[in-house]
Amino acid sequence: MISSLESDALPTAADVEAAARRIAGMAVETPLLESPALNERVGGRVFLKPESLQRTGSFKFRGAYNKLKRLGEQGGARGGVVAFSSGNHAQGVAAAAQLLGVKAAIVMPSDAPAIKLANTRGYGAEVVLYDRAREDREAIAQALAEKRGATIVRPFDDPDIIAGQGTVGLEIRQQAKARGLDLDAALIPAGGGGLISGSTLALKAGWPALPVYACEPAGYDDTGRSLALHRRLPADTSAASLCDGLLSPMPGKLTFALNDRLLAGGFAVTDDEVLSAMAFAFRVLKLVIEPSGAVCLAALLTGKFDGRGRNTALVISGGNVDPGVFVRALERED
Amino acid sequence: MISSLESDALPTAADVEAAARRIAGMAVETPLLESPALNERVGGRVFLKPESLQRTGSFKFRGAYNKLKRLGEQGGARGGVVAFSSGNHAQGVAAAAQLLGVKAAIVMPSDAPAIKLANTRGYGAEVVLYDRAREDREAIAQALAEKRGATIVRPFDDPDIIAGQGTVGLEIRQQAKARGLDLDAALIPAGGGGLISGSTLALKAGWPALPVYACEPAGYDDTGRSLALHRRLPADTSAASLCDGLLSPMPGKLTFALNDRLLAGGFAVTDDEVLSAMAFAFRVLKLVIEPSGAVCLAALLTGKFDGRGRNTALVISGGNVDPGVFVRALERED
Repeated sequence: MISSLESDALPTAADVEAAARRIAGMAVETPLLESPALNERVGGRVFLKPESLQRTGSFKFRGAYNKLKRLGEQGGARGGVVAFSSGNHAQGVAAAAQLLGVKAAIVMPSDAPAIKLANTRGYGAEVVLYDRAREDREAIAQALAEKRGATIVRPFDDPDIIAGQGTVGLEIRQQAKARGLDLDAALIPAGGGGLISGSTLALKAGWPALPVYACEPAGYDDTGRSLALHRRLPADTSAASLCDGLLSPMPGKLTFALNDRLLAGGFAVTDDEVLSAMAFAFRVLKLVIEPSGAVCLAALLTGKFDGRGRNTALVISGGNVDPGVFVRALERED
Repeated sequence: MISSLESDALPTAADVEAAARRIAGMAVETPLLESPALNERVGGRVFLKPESLQRTGSFKFRGAYNKLKRLGEQGGARGGVVAFSSGNHAQGVAAAAQLLGVKAAIVMPSDAPAIKLANTRGYGAEVVLYDRAREDREAIAQALAEKRGATIVRPFDDPDIIAGQGTVGLEIRQQAKARGLDLDAALIPAGGGGLISGSTLALKAGWPALPVYACEPAGYDDTGRSLALHRRLPADTSAASLCDGLLSPMPGKLTFALNDRLLAGGFAVTDDEVLSAMAFAFRVLKLVIEPSGAVCLAALLTGKFDGRGRNTALVISGGNVDPGVFVRALERED
C-alpha cells in the first residue's frame, strides 16, 4: 500500500488516524490519568497522558514504527534504516526496526550515557559511535545510508514521523470523548515539534478551537518565540538544560509550518522548575518522568499556564532518566 | 440504606460490587497496564494494576471510603471515626473522612515519618500521637472512640473494608473482560489480607478456577504459611522488613476465613528482592512503587512465580515511599 503522502507534504488529521491503525497492537495505548491531588492543587481538572509508559519509555516509538512500517509497505526499507540520536529517538527506531525485522544503525556520540547505548543495542540495533567534538553525525549517517542503500529516519521533520507522534493526541481525544469530556486546553512538549504538531492536528479535529501550548526549556523555547513572530528562530544553543530530549537547535520546517498555523503559544520553564515538577511527580503522581517529559507539568505547577476551572490535557513525553538526575530532583526541599 | 451485612459476616462478590457503586467517582479507576518490556522479560503477559495511582497513593482509600460511606448511610458516623495506623490506612481514612465531612482522629506513633504525619493532617484529620515504646495504640483508640462516641475503622478485618479493597480485583476483572482477555493467575500483596481476600472474591466471580497467590515479605509470610496448614499462624515479628505496609502480626479472622477457602498459595520475598523490583519499576516501568507495593513484582521477577506463557494480573498496592528508601533501590547495581 503506497500512500499518497509526498515526503514533504504536510500531514493531516487523516494521516494521524492512518498511523494509529498502523501502530495498533505494537504501541501501548497509554492511559489518560487523573490525579485528585493534582486537580486540587491546580483548581481544575488535568488529564495526564504518560508516554513514559510507552514502549521504550517515550512517545518516540510511535513515529518510528509508523515510518518504518510505511517504508516497508513502499518497499523502501530493504537496505535498512539509519538514525542519529543520543536518546529516545534512537531507542524508538531501534525497537521499531527489531519488531519489523529491519536492520537499523544508530549514530550515537561515544560519550552518550552508557544506559542509552546499552538500551539501543538491547533492541538489536548496530550502534555507530562518533566523536562529538570532531565529527558531524549527520554527515556520518548520510555516508552510511548511501553506502548501504539505507533510509535515514529523521527525528521529527518527516510527515510519517509527525503522523505517528500525533497518535498521542488522537488517543487523548478518543479517551476524553469516551468519558464524555471536553477539553479546554492542552500542554505538549516541543523539541523539533513532531509530537506537538501531529497531536494538535488530531486534537483540533475534535475541538477546532482548542488552545494548544508548546512547553519548552528556557533557552530552547525556539518554538514559542517563533510562533510570536511567525518565522523560525534558532534556539540559544549556548544555554544549559537538563531537558536532553528537547534541545533541537531550530523548529522543523514541516513541523513549524503546522505549529505556526495551529498553536496558541508557548511556555518556557527552567531546570529548577523541571526538577520541582519531577519531584512532585514522584511524591504525588507516583510517576517517573524524565526532565524533557516534565516541562508541561512544570508550566502548570508554576502557574505559567493557569489551569483553574479548565479541563487541561497534559502530555508527559517520556520517563528515561538516569538515577543520578532523578536523585537530584528527590533531594530538593520543596 | 441499611445493608444486611452483619459486622462479622463474610462479604461476598455482591458486596464488592455494591462497594464499587459506593466509591464510584471518588476513587480513581486505576488503569490496567501492560509493559512490552516486562512481558518479554517474563515470557508471558503481565497486567499491572497500579494502586500507586489511587487517591492517597494506595488502595487503602477504597476500603476506607466504602466503610465511612456505609457508616453514614447507617447513621453511625456522627461521632466521627478513629483509626490507628502509621501509614496508608491513616491516609485513606483521613481522605475519605474529609470527602464525607466526617471527623477523623488517627492514632499514630510519635516517631512516624514526618511526611506521613503531614499527609494525614493534610487531609484534615486530627493526629493523636502516642509513644510506641510505652503505650498501646489500640487501647488509646478504644478510649478515644468511647469518649467521643466515634467508630473505630479497623484496617482489614471488617467486611466493608474487605469489600472496598476488593474493588481492585473487580476492576481488574472488568478491564480484562473489556479487552477480551482471560487471566491465568493473579498475584496480590497480603498484609492483614483485606486487599487479597476482597479482590479474590471479585476475580473468582469471573474466573472460578483462577489461582490467586499471596505475596508477602519474608518473615511476614504468615498468610502463605497459614494457608499451608489451614490455620492462622503468627508472623515472625522479630524479622526486619522494608515493607512497612505488610507487617501485620497475624492474618485477620475474617480475611483468613476467605483466603483459606480462596487462595492457591503464597510467595515470600526478601528486602533485597523488593529493592530490585523497585529499581526495575523505575528503570523499565517508570512507576514509583513503595516496598510493600513491590512484593508481587519481586515474586515475578525472581521467578518464584513462573509467569511464562500465562496471562498474569499483578497488583501494585501503593507508591508512598520516602525518597531515602527509593534512592537505596536506585543505587543498586542490578
